[in-house]
Formats: sequence, structure tokens, C-alpha cells
Amino acid sequence: MSKAEDQAGFRYESVADDREQVRRIVSATGYFSDAEIEIAVELVEDRLAKGEQSDYHFVFLEQGEGLVGYGCFGEIPCTVGSYDVYWIAVDPNCQGQGIGKRLMREIERRIAERGGRHVYAETSGRQQYTPTRLFYERCGYEVASVLPDFYAPGDARVTYRKLL
Amino acid sequence: MSKAEDQAGFRYESVADDREQVRRIVSATGYFSDAEIEIAVELVEDRLAKGEQSDYHFVFLEQGEGLVGYGCFGEIPCTVGSYDVYWIAVDPNCQGQGIGKRLMREIERRIAERGGRHVYAETSGRQQYTPTRLFYERCGYEVASVLPDFYAPGDARVTYRKLL
Repeated sequence: MSKAEDQAGFRYESVADDREQVRRIVSATGYFSDAEIEIAVELVEDRLAKGEQSDYHFVFLEQGEGLVGYGCFGEIPCTVGSYDVYWIAVDPNCQGQGIGKRLMREIERRIAERGGRHVYAETSGRQQYTPTRLFYERCGYEVASVLPDFYAPGDARVTYRKLL
Repeated sequence: MSKAEDQAGFRYESVADDREQVRRIVSATGYFSDAEIEIAVELVEDRLAKGEQSDYHFVFLEQGEGLVGYGCFGEIPCTVGSYDVYWIAVDPNCQGQGIGKRLMREIERRIAERGGRHVYAETSGRQQYTPTRLFYERCGYEVASVLPDFYAPGDARVTYRKLL
């Protein structure tokens, strides 16, 4: 695969079908609660409704016919240059191919392009989320903060940060 | 002042006039940017529109004719029992009378009533916000996290927490 082809397949604007595709992928990962899945879909709908005026930016990655993964990011309100990666999810049937890393690199490239300085990603400290935390660490993120029992008793919030 | 009178004056539902009263108080403190002032007013409008269905809960404190201070809090999305104090502001003409502490105690009482376990409050690490940080510390809050350069270069985010 050439470098040009490797960059192909990213899409930045949402289309109506993304609602169901995002719901499918986010649900299939098994990592998110029903409430979180609804939020993931709502962010897609916000982008659909507002286009470039939306505070939520997307990177969709398609292969063949369907969506194989996506990321959603935005500048954190009342900050100058601090961005949050709200969502990053890869179809479980397509994991282990480096798609998550490609999505993350593309998200970071677009954040830098917008003048972003910091990228944050929050996840759970529970054992179930060890693969997620290792993913952020492999992508060069460091733990910036841990709040024990934040999400629920026994469920810490771990905040990762990368300086661009 | 009797204990009963000390509890008097709190109001929990917003009225139309709160939009301008909150704008007046939040602006007058001199602590908030225009964007932040707009957000403060938007949260009041959310409560006005949705009533008890709003995710934003309020404690308004009136003395005589007008509003002298208010607080706004809510359960942090996707958590069980972690609450954020989004806003707490006292009319500068009425500061130094313990109104902030009374508001905070009432906020915490209402959070505990709803089953809340943790209360969080975020503020800036800049020197200008030293009185704010000292206020949280006097109210029994401890620093749970510091993210340097979060709001802007040289402007850290300090997250305070109190366990109920």
C-alpha cells in the first residue's frame, strides 16, 4: 500500500447513515453503556445538523462498503488549544490492523492543524479497560490525572494527555 | 438569626428574571470571560425550558428585592454520584458575609439528598483565582488534579473534590 493509499478513506463530514453505523460499531465494542452509546449517536446528529458550526469534529474511516472505525474530537469549551478525543472506536471485526492508531494519528494531525496544543482522552481505570489504556500509551499518551471512584465506586477516571 | 431563618431565602427553580440577574452577578465578579458568562446564562435558560428534566440544578439566594448569589450543579454525565459545581457566584456588593459558604453548604446538602458521593469544582491556577481556590479550601475541598497549561499556556486547571 502506497503512502497516498494509506491516507485514503478518511472522511470528515457525517452522512445520515453514520448514525446507525456509529451505533453499530460503538455497541459492538462492548465497552460502552447504553447511555454512552446514545451520546455517541447524539454527537453524530449534532454534526449532521450543524455541519462545520458543530463543536464536534469527526474522522470516519471506510474500507470497501462500510465504516470500520471513527473518532470524534473537539476543543474543550473555555480553553485555548486543549482538545478532547471524545470517542474513538473500531469495528471489532477489523481490530488488530492498526486502524485505531491511524485514526488517532489523523485526529492529532487535524487538531495540530487547528492550533491545538494538548490532546486529552478519558477512560476508566477498571480492568476491562486495560486494552484501551494500553492503546493510549502506545499512541504516546501519558496519565495526567487519576480520580478514584469518579465514575462509580471502584471505577476511577484516568485522564491521558499528549502534547503536540 | 435563627436556624430556620438561616435556611430561608433559597429558591431552586429559575424564573425568567434570573437570566439577567445571573448575567449581572457573574459579570460583576470580574472572574469570567464573555464566553463563560454566556454559558452561565445558557444553563439558566436550560432550566427555564426543561424544569426538573434539566441536568442543571440551582440554588438561588435572595435578600430583600434581589438575587445576591447563586450556584449551579449537576451530576456529571456517565457517572453514578459524582457532581460538578458548575457555577457559584456572589454579588460583589454582598461578599464577605458568608453567602458563598451558605450556597455551597446548600448545594452539598442537595447533592447528598440525591445520593451524590463526590462534589467536584474546577477553577484556574492563575493568581487572579487565588481567592476562589482559598474559598474551596475553606469549604473543605482538596485538590484532586492539576493540569498545567490546560485552559491556555500558563493557565492550569485545578480540580477540587469533596467526599460527602
